Amino acid sequence: MNKDLHIHNSLKRTKEQFEPYNPPYVGLYVCGPTVYGEAHLGHARPAVTFDLLFRYLKHLGYKVRYVRNITDVGHLESDADEGEDKIAKKARLEKLEPMEIAEHYARSYHRNMDQMNVLRPGIEPRASGHIIEQQQMVKKILENGYAYERNGSVYFDVEKYNREHNYGKLSGRNIEELRANTRELEGQQEKKNPFDFALWKKAAPEHIMQWPSDWSSGFPGWHLECSAMSTRYLGHPFDIHGGGMDLVFPHHECEIAQSTAAKGQESVRYWMHNNMVTINGQKMGKSLHNFITLNQFFSGDHELLNKAFSPMTIRFFTLQAHYRSPLDFSSEALEAAEKGLEKLLKAGELIDRIKGGDQTDLDLGDVEEKFYQAMNDDLNTPILFAHLFDLVRYINSLDQGQARIRHEDIPRLRSLYDTFVYDILGIRRESKSDSSQLPGELIEMILQIRLEAKKNKDFETADKIRDRLRELGVIVKDTKDGYDWEVKR
Amino acid sequence: MNKDLHIHNSLKRTKEQFEPYNPPYVGLYVCGPTVYGEAHLGHARPAVTFDLLFRYLKHLGYKVRYVRNITDVGHLESDADEGEDKIAKKARLEKLEPMEIAEHYARSYHRNMDQMNVLRPGIEPRASGHIIEQQQMVKKILENGYAYERNGSVYFDVEKYNREHNYGKLSGRNIEELRANTRELEGQQEKKNPFDFALWKKAAPEHIMQWPSDWSSGFPGWHLECSAMSTRYLGHPFDIHGGGMDLVFPHHECEIAQSTAAKGQESVRYWMHNNMVTINGQKMGKSLHNFITLNQFFSGDHELLNKAFSPMTIRFFTLQAHYRSPLDFSSEALEAAEKGLEKLLKAGELIDRIKGGDQTDLDLGDVEEKFYQAMNDDLNTPILFAHLFDLVRYINSLDQGQARIRHEDIPRLRSLYDTFVYDILGIRRESKSDSSQLPGELIEMILQIRLEAKKNKDFETADKIRDRLRELGVIVKDTKDGYDWEVKR
Repeated sequence: MNKDLHIHNSLKRTKEQFEPYNPPYVGLYVCGPTVYGEAHLGHARPAVTFDLLFRYLKHLGYKVRYVRNITDVGHLESDADEGEDKIAKKARLEKLEPMEIAEHYARSYHRNMDQMNVLRPGIEPRASGHIIEQQQMVKKILENGYAYERNGSVYFDVEKYNREHNYGKLSGRNIEELRANTRELEGQQEKKNPFDFALWKKAAPEHIMQWPSDWSSGFPGWHLECSAMSTRYLGHPFDIHGGGMDLVFPHHECEIAQSTAAKGQESVRYWMHNNMVTINGQKMGKSLHNFITLNQFFSGDHELLNKAFSPMTIRFFTLQAHYRSPLDFSSEALEAAEKGLEKLLKAGELIDRIKGGDQTDLDLGDVEEKFYQAMNDDLNTPILFAHLFDLVRYINSLDQGQARIRHEDIPRLRSLYDTFVYDILGIRRESKSDSSQLPGELIEMILQIRLEAKKNKDFETADKIRDRLRELGVIVKDTKDGYDWEVKR
Repeated sequence: MNKDLHIHNSLKRTKEQFEPYNPPYVGLYVCGPTVYGEAHLGHARPAVTFDLLFRYLKHLGYKVRYVRNITDVGHLESDADEGEDKIAKKARLEKLEPMEIAEHYARSYHRNMDQMNVLRPGIEPRASGHIIEQQQMVKKILENGYAYERNGSVYFDVEKYNREHNYGKLSGRNIEELRANTRELEGQQEKKNPFDFALWKKAAPEHIMQWPSDWSSGFPGWHLECSAMSTRYLGHPFDIHGGGMDLVFPHHECEIAQSTAAKGQESVRYWMHNNMVTINGQKMGKSLHNFITLNQFFSGDHELLNKAFSPMTIRFFTLQAHYRSPLDFSSEALEAAEKGLEKLLKAGELIDRIKGGDQTDLDLGDVEEKFYQAMNDDLNTPILFAHLFDLVRYINSLDQGQARIRHEDIPRLRSLYDTFVYDILGIRRESKSDSSQLPGELIEMILQIRLEAKKNKDFETADKIRDRLRELGVIVKDTKDGYDWEVKR
């Protein structure tokens, strides 16, 4: 079985074989949420994407240290580094302490991610908790001559850096283009060039979140936290840095520049980026009235949704697309995904009642090989799902007595299904509604009563029981041996 | 209704009327867990105690900012400030990053507290996330002349402080006593006096958690974090500081000294301390083999436990004692508490089927008055429970038709019960086993079938259904109108 993982490295614009610096250890850093609002699809997609990577790396036997940050300070409203700190602004509006807001939304984010079966990273460092590390990095960059101070703020000197290194190597932008396209915004007079970015910003007195420093009482530039915290916990250099494609520029480009300027070499070996999310073909945005939070998906409480969608449906739908392809959400597409998920889970249950024989119609070794091939090809989940649904059809045929499997292959089928569906893809059976928690024993008891009624030719009672159960969401099918039943939503 | 709360102020050694600095706002700070192990009763008791206070203050209409810290660095193994940082030590043993261990146990703590229905504080600051604030406080204390530096470490000068202030005012200890009783430990030569305590410790090179400072690369003394973080989020001075009685000395005594030395006046108006926990009459300790974690209580997996106890039983048992009394846990005492809790919850369910009339045997106004009197008297929960169980007896009598209540008093009874049991005491009905989640509709359906069988004189079927339901934990009682049922464990 070839278990060599290949991943697409955004830096090289090609797929490469994954080779960690210190096997079996792998360092993985992913840009996490800015906690000033409810989590939405833009949070869900990277979380699910890198959860898949985390799970697969662990499955392959790597010991993964997974770090995902929580941005609770310093994320400015525009990339031009002007404007207010988003969190501080909301705090003032709501008359709350910024940290109270950050705690509130961090908890809400965790709840949503737990619902979607996204594993918690080993470390979730907060930007506000690593000010010293960030200040040390600013000092180092200043010492190395790639930054300058103006009125208590410190800016990264992009032009100087670009003379010796390649600013734009990740995003493919070049400095002349940037010069032409960057508007001169108010308050940027401090910068030598409009594309320079802040490492440390002097804070206005009314700014709530500020810390003393060698330059001013202020706060770190947004790009700095990831450079400082990733290397703090993963060392320098480390293996994989992930995030959404929208972060390639300026965020990740600036991270590369900062690390190189501070340490003389880049920190990251593999850059991985998930593609973006649209809703009914449009970019998600509050002004477009198509901004749907995860809680709204889970409750169905949004005008664009026909119904509620379970966290597992959102996860399954996200994984059906390759992470580097755009993903368009719509109520209709999710309804289709819901059905697919149900088929997949149903097949998992059927495995337990399959009866084996001496012959088989499917070589499980081939299936396993295909599963690994798909995953090893840059986590190609659409291909994996295609193979998985081939397997689902086989399982259904087995259940209906229209295909054969050897006795000894049944445990292997169970294990193959569980490994890929539950462990690697992180799909799980949800308790959907109260009706799905109806204990089977009670239903069995009622159906035994019904069976006796039928035997006594009391068809009126038998039908009444069947109809009443249907009202409660329990579908009864008569079979030649007795009955079969399942719980529908 | 007199809603004036009186609380016992450890500083004054007496009960005082509670008057916040800026009503309706209340600042509440409580010492939280050191996250290097599973939570046990020593964590549960303060968490439940101050959760009760938090809930009651909110019930009284206060807007409470509740801050509870997470100690993830700097808690030394001995109060003498020598030895290794506990977390860093475990990390080295397990070859893990200390932050990974801290995250692991912080999550485990949160899970346990959620299970016990302990509300999350608004802010949970981490010591490692507030190094700058702590360093600033060290600077201020040095500037004010109450600390001295030795070889990169900074110590608080207790003797100097005590000449102008009263070191020992909270704990009642005095400096001569301390001088006589403090042993000179190895490595303490740096200190002027053995009872001086560290504000900043220079770290050995192999110490994983260390930060640069004006004095050395090191870490803050343990007492410092609470002084720095409480005032950071609650201002100076603030209303209430809580914690376990074991923290009075040295931790809280040192906090008072630090704040006074840095700011010229004390930070805290009311100090509140919960008493300690014993197990079968003994102090809990790993060497005594009576160290039981909360997870072990919840699973019953410990030799001293006869069975598993639900998180709500632990909460109920904790609240049955006054928070300033010692509390002795034993399997037998918890079994009794379990029965009491069940009675209390059962009464809450009975209220919904009580039938009212024109007369009443109980003045609910009196009851309410007694409830508030108990809570206002320093959260006197044993008295509150005594009154509550009087009410439970009344509810049972009502249910049995042996007492009377006016129609219009029933909603008031409901509201009184819900407010005190669910909202203030934070008791809730747990889903115990699968059988308690049996949907009533299915049971009703079966019992309707049984009723029809009885009408048709088919007693055999009727009895079979009753017996089978009993096996599933559903107890059926025949009444003159039909039937009644309840789910037992």
